[in-house]
Amino acid sequence: MSKIILTGDRPTGRLHLGHYVGSLKRRVELQNSGEYDKIFIMIADAQALTDNFDNPGKIRDNIIEVALDYLSCGLDPSKVNIFIQSALTELTELTFYYMNLVTVSRLERNPTVKSEIQMRKFEASIPAGFFTYPVSQTSDITAFKATTVPVGEDQLPMIEQAREIVRKFNATYGEVLVEPQALIPENSICSRLPGTDGKAKMSKSLGNCIYLSDSAEEVKKKVMSMYTDPDHIQISDPGKIEGNAVFTYLDAFAKDSDFAEFCPDYKNLDEMKDHYKRGGLGDVKCKKLLLNIINRELDPIRAKRKELEKDIPAIYDILRKGTEEAKKEAAKTLAEVRAAMKINYFEDKELIRSQQEKFNSGK
Amino acid sequence: MSKIILTGDRPTGRLHLGHYVGSLKRRVELQNSGEYDKIFIMIADAQALTDNFDNPGKIRDNIIEVALDYLSCGLDPSKVNIFIQSALTELTELTFYYMNLVTVSRLERNPTVKSEIQMRKFEASIPAGFFTYPVSQTSDITAFKATTVPVGEDQLPMIEQAREIVRKFNATYGEVLVEPQALIPENSICSRLPGTDGKAKMSKSLGNCIYLSDSAEEVKKKVMSMYTDPDHIQISDPGKIEGNAVFTYLDAFAKDSDFAEFCPDYKNLDEMKDHYKRGGLGDVKCKKLLLNIINRELDPIRAKRKELEKDIPAIYDILRKGTEEAKKEAAKTLAEVRAAMKINYFEDKELIRSQQEKFNSGK
Repeated sequence: MSKIILTGDRPTGRLHLGHYVGSLKRRVELQNSGEYDKIFIMIADAQALTDNFDNPGKIRDNIIEVALDYLSCGLDPSKVNIFIQSALTELTELTFYYMNLVTVSRLERNPTVKSEIQMRKFEASIPAGFFTYPVSQTSDITAFKATTVPVGEDQLPMIEQAREIVRKFNATYGEVLVEPQALIPENSICSRLPGTDGKAKMSKSLGNCIYLSDSAEEVKKKVMSMYTDPDHIQISDPGKIEGNAVFTYLDAFAKDSDFAEFCPDYKNLDEMKDHYKRGGLGDVKCKKLLLNIINRELDPIRAKRKELEKDIPAIYDILRKGTEEAKKEAAKTLAEVRAAMKINYFEDKELIRSQQEKFNSGK
Repeated sequence: MSKIILTGDRPTGRLHLGHYVGSLKRRVELQNSGEYDKIFIMIADAQALTDNFDNPGKIRDNIIEVALDYLSCGLDPSKVNIFIQSALTELTELTFYYMNLVTVSRLERNPTVKSEIQMRKFEASIPAGFFTYPVSQTSDITAFKATTVPVGEDQLPMIEQAREIVRKFNATYGEVLVEPQALIPENSICSRLPGTDGKAKMSKSLGNCIYLSDSAEEVKKKVMSMYTDPDHIQISDPGKIEGNAVFTYLDAFAKDSDFAEFCPDYKNLDEMKDHYKRGGLGDVKCKKLLLNIINRELDPIRAKRKELEKDIPAIYDILRKGTEEAKKEAAKTLAEVRAAMKINYFEDKELIRSQQEKFNSGK
């Protein structure tokens, strides 16, 4: 069986270091591993509209930003299909039929949906489109017969939901769909980066993100004002590593070789942490190291982005081609789905013949 | 503004006298009135699947039955568009976006959905597709910019739901959709026929229907065993009219002229009712009158059906053409919807131009 990946992002803003560490960097590795037959990367504008329906301009403006971030990070349109979700009407049709295979109470029990509803403060006024988005995600995954969906642990209930719908479909209509597997990051430290303010998650609305497209100056300002240990007032005070955003970022990015290059006082991160915990190591020194490491990571991405920004029509061409390719795959699956459900009346000559026979024989 | 009708039926069985009295007869009158610019008649297979997902064969088999019933009753494909819902992927795309404009709690409050959930004994396991079918109905109506939806009183909450979604869409994205009006039958007696067993509704599962395609023999058997007044045991006993199915049917069908033709003992239905109430009039005489009247109504329908059944491929051709025509209209509306939502990225040259300018100017 082919190994196929489906992954993507909601175009609600430019991508940030959290995306990079949590998924983007790995996605490029998966692309270059040669292990996958096809990789589909979806710009999930239709899903983003489920809780941004009153602000389609935001989604529209950010599609190009996300595409630029993708290409700048090394996603290669000759190896992956980048496509726009809303251009594939096939996905809405699959969603429509899958909705019959899942109950309202099952959706209510979905822990990911529960926590996202809480996060968005929807309370009683949850848009039906948001409530049912796990069904839509199932369409996204199954339309490409994806075997593999790279996700964080918090998204596991979504994959389980998709697997349930696949099993129900196949049991009801025959084996058409493929049960996807979640691909969880091996290194859990790297799976989620906190905001620069130490809050659990980078979020545009909290203003605590370092964007991939931030200039070196912007990154400097953000890193130098990062949250560390509020009790670490004098340099000589012992410092805490846990919950200290600078060290969490260093955990995600720093390699031993970085110390030789940028901070030769320490052999590796453990030595630096020990000194910080003992007292006598100032935040600024740690932040400068982090800044150097981040900029080394972002410099080539920024440079590539500058180049790409010069020809926006070319980016849309890449999206158009990726979308056409993705549409072909989704249409193929939809045709199989319709045939399995036996709702392909006009294509089915046998149906007409047998019905004529039935009427001729007087029922 | 054009006057446009959208109406239809779920293909879960052959159509019966309840459909005929409640909607079909009137639909033919509306068709022949010349008052409407376009009439779309939808065979709602996709909606029927929301609570018959595990039995697509039933839906599939009944599409041709419903189409034959339509044409036999006088619906004329040169005047109306008969189409198959599931062939219009546009409808699922509209549903997808409208789902963002209605909350879960609003759907929970819909009285029609509430009572249908009760009727179907879904309890906790309501399929999400069934729960959200008012949104799908809104797509069906608005895809054709229907101004007029002929419905029974019990369906008014559905139309109100559609009107709410239309207002929300137009307020959010601009004036694209048309607010539909319900068209309620003038004569409420005619809007709902009880089953032959006196139960409130004709229902296939209760076996209490007289089908339009029943033979004269079948109709005779059903009418002669109809529910009347259980206390009317001797012919001399006084009888009750209320809840007496035979008289409810006579209310729906009998004209004064029928008495001269079939039952000259009475001038009209009132005289017959008076005699029945006084006592001295047997059920059989009333049933024979009803049988004559029903068969006079059904004879030409049956004859036409026999003719039509000889060429099933021709019926599918009618459906195919109606579906193609309907698809064109729905596609036109969908294009307007997508443009209003500004998710028509690839068609929008101005978008690419202005984004290029923004990047050139360094944001």
